Amino acid sequence: MMNKFDKAKNLKIAYIGGGSRGWAWKLMSDLAKEEMLSGELCLYDIDYEAAKQNEIVWSKVEEHPECKAKWNCKAVKTLKEALINADFVIISILPGTFDEMDSDVHLPEKYGIYQSVGDTMGPGGIVRALRTLPMFEEIAQSVKENCPDAWVINYTNPMSLCLKALYMTFPEIKAWGCCHEVFGTQKLLSRALSIIEGIEEVPFKDIKVNVVGVNHFTWLTEAYYKDIDLFPVYEKFCEKYSDCGYELKDEDSWLNKFFDTHELVKMDLFKRFGYIAAAGDRHLAEFCPGYWYIDSPERVEKWGFALTPVSWRKENRDDLIEESKRLVSGQQKFEIKETGEEGVRQIKAILGLGDFTTNINIPNQGQIPNLPIGAIVETNAYLTSGTLKPVFAGNIPEKILPLVSRVVAEQEVVARAVKERNLEIAFDAFIGDPLVTISQEKARELFDQMIENTKEYLKDYGV
Amino acid sequence: MMNKFDKAKNLKIAYIGGGSRGWAWKLMSDLAKEEMLSGELCLYDIDYEAAKQNEIVWSKVEEHPECKAKWNCKAVKTLKEALINADFVIISILPGTFDEMDSDVHLPEKYGIYQSVGDTMGPGGIVRALRTLPMFEEIAQSVKENCPDAWVINYTNPMSLCLKALYMTFPEIKAWGCCHEVFGTQKLLSRALSIIEGIEEVPFKDIKVNVVGVNHFTWLTEAYYKDIDLFPVYEKFCEKYSDCGYELKDEDSWLNKFFDTHELVKMDLFKRFGYIAAAGDRHLAEFCPGYWYIDSPERVEKWGFALTPVSWRKENRDDLIEESKRLVSGQQKFEIKETGEEGVRQIKAILGLGDFTTNINIPNQGQIPNLPIGAIVETNAYLTSGTLKPVFAGNIPEKILPLVSRVVAEQEVVARAVKERNLEIAFDAFIGDPLVTISQEKARELFDQMIENTKEYLKDYGV
Amino acid sequence: MMNKFDKAKNLKIAYIGGGSRGWAWKLMSDLAKEEMLSGELCLYDIDYEAAKQNEIVWSKVEEHPECKAKWNCKAVKTLKEALINADFVIISILPGTFDEMDSDVHLPEKYGIYQSVGDTMGPGGIVRALRTLPMFEEIAQSVKENCPDAWVINYTNPMSLCLKALYMTFPEIKAWGCCHEVFGTQKLLSRALSIIEGIEEVPFKDIKVNVVGVNHFTWLTEAYYKDIDLFPVYEKFCEKYSDCGYELKDEDSWLNKFFDTHELVKMDLFKRFGYIAAAGDRHLAEFCPGYWYIDSPERVEKWGFALTPVSWRKENRDDLIEESKRLVSGQQKFEIKETGEEGVRQIKAILGLGDFTTNINIPNQGQIPNLPIGAIVETNAYLTSGTLKPVFAGNIPEKILPLVSRVVAEQEVVARAVKERNLEIAFDAFIGDPLVTISQEKARELFDQMIENTKEYLKDYGV
Amino acid sequence: MMNKFDKAKNLKIAYIGGGSRGWAWKLMSDLAKEEMLSGELCLYDIDYEAAKQNEIVWSKVEEHPECKAKWNCKAVKTLKEALINADFVIISILPGTFDEMDSDVHLPEKYGIYQSVGDTMGPGGIVRALRTLPMFEEIAQSVKENCPDAWVINYTNPMSLCLKALYMTFPEIKAWGCCHEVFGTQKLLSRALSIIEGIEEVPFKDIKVNVVGVNHFTWLTEAYYKDIDLFPVYEKFCEKYSDCGYELKDEDSWLNKFFDTHELVKMDLFKRFGYIAAAGDRHLAEFCPGYWYIDSPERVEKWGFALTPVSWRKENRDDLIEESKRLVSGQQKFEIKETGEEGVRQIKAILGLGDFTTNINIPNQGQIPNLPIGAIVETNAYLTSGTLKPVFAGNIPEKILPLVSRVVAEQEVVARAVKERNLEIAFDAFIGDPLVTISQEKARELFDQMIENTKEYLKDYGV
Repeated sequence: MMNKFDKAKNLKIAYIGGGSRGWAWKLMSDLAKEEMLSGELCLYDIDYEAAKQNEIVWSKVEEHPECKAKWNCKAVKTLKEALINADFVIISILPGTFDEMDSDVHLPEKYGIYQSVGDTMGPGGIVRALRTLPMFEEIAQSVKENCPDAWVINYTNPMSLCLKALYMTFPEIKAWGCCHEVFGTQKLLSRALSIIEGIEEVPFKDIKVNVVGVNHFTWLTEAYYKDIDLFPVYEKFCEKYSDCGYELKDEDSWLNKFFDTHELVKMDLFKRFGYIAAAGDRHLAEFCPGYWYIDSPERVEKWGFALTPVSWRKENRDDLIEESKRLVSGQQKFEIKETGEEGVRQIKAILGLGDFTTNINIPNQGQIPNLPIGAIVETNAYLTSGTLKPVFAGNIPEKILPLVSRVVAEQEVVARAVKERNLEIAFDAFIGDPLVTISQEKARELFDQMIENTKEYLKDYGV
Repeated sequence: MMNKFDKAKNLKIAYIGGGSRGWAWKLMSDLAKEEMLSGELCLYDIDYEAAKQNEIVWSKVEEHPECKAKWNCKAVKTLKEALINADFVIISILPGTFDEMDSDVHLPEKYGIYQSVGDTMGPGGIVRALRTLPMFEEIAQSVKENCPDAWVINYTNPMSLCLKALYMTFPEIKAWGCCHEVFGTQKLLSRALSIIEGIEEVPFKDIKVNVVGVNHFTWLTEAYYKDIDLFPVYEKFCEKYSDCGYELKDEDSWLNKFFDTHELVKMDLFKRFGYIAAAGDRHLAEFCPGYWYIDSPERVEKWGFALTPVSWRKENRDDLIEESKRLVSGQQKFEIKETGEEGVRQIKAILGLGDFTTNINIPNQGQIPNLPIGAIVETNAYLTSGTLKPVFAGNIPEKILPLVSRVVAEQEVVARAVKERNLEIAFDAFIGDPLVTISQEKARELFDQMIENTKEYLKDYGV
Repeated sequence: MMNKFDKAKNLKIAYIGGGSRGWAWKLMSDLAKEEMLSGELCLYDIDYEAAKQNEIVWSKVEEHPECKAKWNCKAVKTLKEALINADFVIISILPGTFDEMDSDVHLPEKYGIYQSVGDTMGPGGIVRALRTLPMFEEIAQSVKENCPDAWVINYTNPMSLCLKALYMTFPEIKAWGCCHEVFGTQKLLSRALSIIEGIEEVPFKDIKVNVVGVNHFTWLTEAYYKDIDLFPVYEKFCEKYSDCGYELKDEDSWLNKFFDTHELVKMDLFKRFGYIAAAGDRHLAEFCPGYWYIDSPERVEKWGFALTPVSWRKENRDDLIEESKRLVSGQQKFEIKETGEEGVRQIKAILGLGDFTTNINIPNQGQIPNLPIGAIVETNAYLTSGTLKPVFAGNIPEKILPLVSRVVAEQEVVARAVKERNLEIAFDAFIGDPLVTISQEKARELFDQMIENTKEYLKDYGV
Repeated sequence: MMNKFDKAKNLKIAYIGGGSRGWAWKLMSDLAKEEMLSGELCLYDIDYEAAKQNEIVWSKVEEHPECKAKWNCKAVKTLKEALINADFVIISILPGTFDEMDSDVHLPEKYGIYQSVGDTMGPGGIVRALRTLPMFEEIAQSVKENCPDAWVINYTNPMSLCLKALYMTFPEIKAWGCCHEVFGTQKLLSRALSIIEGIEEVPFKDIKVNVVGVNHFTWLTEAYYKDIDLFPVYEKFCEKYSDCGYELKDEDSWLNKFFDTHELVKMDLFKRFGYIAAAGDRHLAEFCPGYWYIDSPERVEKWGFALTPVSWRKENRDDLIEESKRLVSGQQKFEIKETGEEGVRQIKAILGLGDFTTNINIPNQGQIPNLPIGAIVETNAYLTSGTLKPVFAGNIPEKILPLVSRVVAEQEVVARAVKERNLEIAFDAFIGDPLVTISQEKARELFDQMIENTKEYLKDYGV
């Protein structure tokens, strides 16, 4: 870390997964707009060529007339090169390929188990964790050796478990996880404010919320705009829309039909429990017992959300590869835009360039008293000079606790399975997951096939 | 409480549910053998005639040549008469009638939900709790007013929730719950010791165990006989019997075909999790996801246990009524026997007439660090002069925690529903129970019918 | 509380101790500058005339050309009138008179016990608490009845114990305590930054600190300006000044020779423990064993701080009474100035008019894990729309914990003594206080005299 | 550990400090009476000759007609030889010589600081800890390597800190500490029962007590004989004797004029706090502020207890050396007697040869909720086959907590000082100790001299 105020000029940011065509470009867009920061941006990716392409993309960004920043951006060949003396580390990787994800998400369908995302919990999330967490152990180990004081920001899923692996490997790591799902709910509340109260165009960050829960299964226990309590506003909104649904049309949206949602799950959960579920319906549905929202395509349709097929992700990836080529060749101009992501703002806050409070994922230190210490939870945190501290969030509401405590306990089992490279322990979690609504024999069969399909990334487990 | 050593002679025991023909007779049998205690035994029952019959039964007991005890036993007409200045209170009641229990247990079968007991958790347990807990609130209130220092022993199910209601109503109450399910597992371990190691006839109380969990879903994390670790012994036992099952033939058994068990669930859980599940299979199965052991009569048969029909309970009750008449008339002689219950021994321990350590149900004060403070848990406790203190039991093992933490959280929701007399909150618990493997709509329909069927006991809920 | 955004216009603020000539005038000054707030300002004081004078003072404030605010300010005769439907309550009272304080502070000197302030802990603080806390019980009870949702800000000492009494009486109260002692240390760090690093004129609020401890015995475990770690800066500062001391000349200072300090205690504590003690030396000295800094006037002089005599407070009060008369008569013009207090900014934050994070006193909910839950602690808190939440502050450093845990435990004893109106319990705290470096007999004699001297305010205790 | 029931025959007990002439002989006496145990008894001592003498002493014991046991007793030359494959380890060592202890206890007297024992806390206890704990680190490390499953019983002072060092070095160690101080208070209660109630000759183990606190500063929060609450009995006893004191004449006593006590401190603490302080007055006085009981020889005399001079210990040692010679030569016959110690009974309990509950010292796992997890506390524990588990003891009473929490916090600082071999941290504890009622300068001077006097054992600290 720098120890002189004016060295925000000599920052080193390491980007793990630096060949990414989604998050990396967003970061570049955000860095381009920021004149207070400069230094070195190291891109590391197991696909070195992809990182190299992004090195060139950045050179194009710097040529952009709106670019206010200067960074020495370079692709590097080893994790160590990226991390050595880094001040900040950003992790955004794809564990395995979309073929593995295909197995994670779609193989369970043969057993009547449907997953809308399949990257967090449920059969897909658990198997994904098995191949992802060892990579995070490796990163944490390398951070420990090469930049123990660096601040580490993760964007990779399964978010909670990735953070868990970082902290289990290197307990002193200064890592947190960022996720924009809560922002979507803040936007929905802004719309509700417009529709119900006639207060227009409130920026989502002005919707003040108290967040409790785990990533992708977060809940708001308080929500305000100025001194307006948004709970009664949202209640009226739900009365109006909980039959037919509401579609949030976001001009900046990257959503399409495979990401469709009508907020019906979210509104159903509010009506049942009285608290605002604060993630996309595709995520929320995966944390509830399967037969609530997701045990058949028909039920999914009824609840107005989509099962995102991995085939779409593959197509999208191919489109992005083409776009990358065009950016590199100069055929397409890099667009500097509002990304809605907060990574750069968070970096600035840590550097003393603007305090703020936002929701992040870190180990529970007591911010949620009725979840275990050490569980990875999502709450607000206060970011300021040299530190990030959780804001006390309060208990998970009693009625929701059965759902949330189960998740946290299951994640600990998966984390243990990875730590011990023990598939039997992983199966203990698998068979207890509420999406696995099948007999023990069938569950075993499915699990074994999912492991077999992704075995290239599971060698450590003796597969 | 007495404050003179020699007043163990003037004890007052209040028996709530004193018309009972099961537990009350066992208590009489145990008291009859005990010459160190004497005093007044007050029988209170909403069925006063039944209590009156038992008053006469005790008079017959005293005529028995083996009876060493002298008690002034009398039926009383009000709860207050029973409780006023009582030293010990025993609660063993049937909440509602077997008709309500019939609905609890068998109506869900129409929706494909099977329950082997139906009195603890699951649809039946939850609805049973709704009508039982208000009675416990009333008892706790009356204890507070009439005998605040009395020791209160509960035998009624749902055990954990009954205790919860007592403590929520009168936090200073000195109450605990007794259950013999763990004893059954100690007996099984004694058999394993015989079969595997050739050590014969070890009394079950000499099998020393560390108990963690909640009533009917208890686990042993340690088990010893002398200095022999019983885990490897039990492992060998499971290797031998986990295919075809093992039947514990207990000569004193009150079990019959409706209570059949082959310990296959217990052994399956041991093989999966590495800890000894310590309750009958009929109970254990109800705490696991429905599709593991109990989602069809076929699966239940495969796992070698029985679904106890309420019709059996009705027949059994009729038999006991006949037996009661014979005892009262003198046609049948009361048999003083070994009951295997510990109530009298516990009373003696509290009176300073012999310390011991056994498993009981009380609020968590930290004896299980990874369950919430205040949750009703089952662990060992040390009973001695003037006190009962939990023995530190340690954490619920990580792999089992997802199953157990869910139970505890669900019980809190049910307790809240009762406290607020709010059926919607009860439904929140109902729909999240892992036995309720049906859609929200069907669950609603089932719940409403179960409430309708038992509404006579649910008037407080605005039904 | 208002439930419409535009009703910041109809606020009701109740000021308990509204005849005050210090804090009340500061509040008026701060309100005068604030155009976003308006409504009713109710002044309640047991000295109704003093409140009435302040009502007039406010009318003069509104005539001031720089006054941007409009408030209906009125003195009221009962606590209930002040509190009914209040949105915010400010408490700033003098418990008893300066005659009682004279006994608190100076009688112990006859026994060789010296106190620099005498209002927090030590003999004076304990006896002060005995007469103050019953008043806070009464206020809390009235808040519960008249404005249970109001936000309550306390400025009265003993701060921690006053808050404790509020929460013991009405656990749902939304109260916190404000104290500017930490600001003084932030100012000192700003000076250190100038002297050691040559970075000039940094406003104290830009010195970002992590606060842990109890009021008047607070510690900084982190301190930054931008990305500069201030610990090494302060270390150099201490090297330079810990022999001869440093005097912070604050032009706005209300300090004089009776408040003198050379920061020698603060620097000594830093050198010993490695963390920055963050209150005035006069307060810090009172929390340490008496023989460290304060067991004789000579030692006090050596450590460069002053014992503030109550005679000064009396004179100062007389001056203020004169000033009040001049303000009321118009002879003197009210000066609208920078007060350095944060009350108005905090009110605005709660109303959604600007988030911020600052140090406040509230019950520990886990923000300091190694102090008991419920103890009144001082840490940062995040204030935003509709809520105030502690920021996780971390443990009291191990080396300081013996000193701090003692304070917290002692305060619990004093709070109990008040709750039970039991002087014997108060004496338990008294005799264990580290300033009471005398024999049990002498301590008893002193305590009894201090009680006798202040008995007019201790009638509830059976004096 | 043995894994066959009948191998209680092949136990290995390692005795560290095996040349001891006090505890070792007591152990021999207890072993001699016990026919259920046999095996190997390894004596290790840095004074090998002393261990060798004791090897011979045991051979004499075995010749005793009342000896029922057979042990292969031998002195060994290395710690490793003693520990390898041990089942039980007993630690009873003298850290340094009595010359060091002379400095610990008597040098502070020159500064007006008196210590009645000087081996637990206070200046003497802290310096003793500095030289003792490194030895315990070495033992723990060796246990980890040579007998990680062994049960370790410590008798050495400072008890709590010795245990702390064992657990800090090897967290999985199965160690506890035994101390007979509580027994003395149980004996006193037995006398009170006789004097006040006329119930004669109650064995002290039949006085059932709930113990909370730290070693040598333990408190009884409950005490019963049968169903007689002993608190009112003790209250009457104190009324009778708290003026003139009571002398417990114990025929088996090893006490003499240097250990005199009249229980006046104990009764004073009871009258003040309402709970029964349960250690000898000489220990209790050292935990309270110095000016309560011990700041001058006159005050000590007034309170009726003695300051034990180290010269007595030296003489006593010389006597024991002579006695040892006589035993070895056969000139004196070894006397098998009732020692009042519980070590052998505890060993038997762990081996499944008789459960019981007694007070021991182990890390807090929640048995005392208001002390920190991990602090070494003294409470009851349940010893049974293969395990020792704390019995939930409840909170330290609020009024006593300021005294006890201070001790625990101070011990953590001393433990840290040792772990980091850092005398400055040790001085932080030293200067905060309530016996150190002198200025910082004097305290520094005293500390430095005490270190200098014992430097031979403090080389690791860079002295």
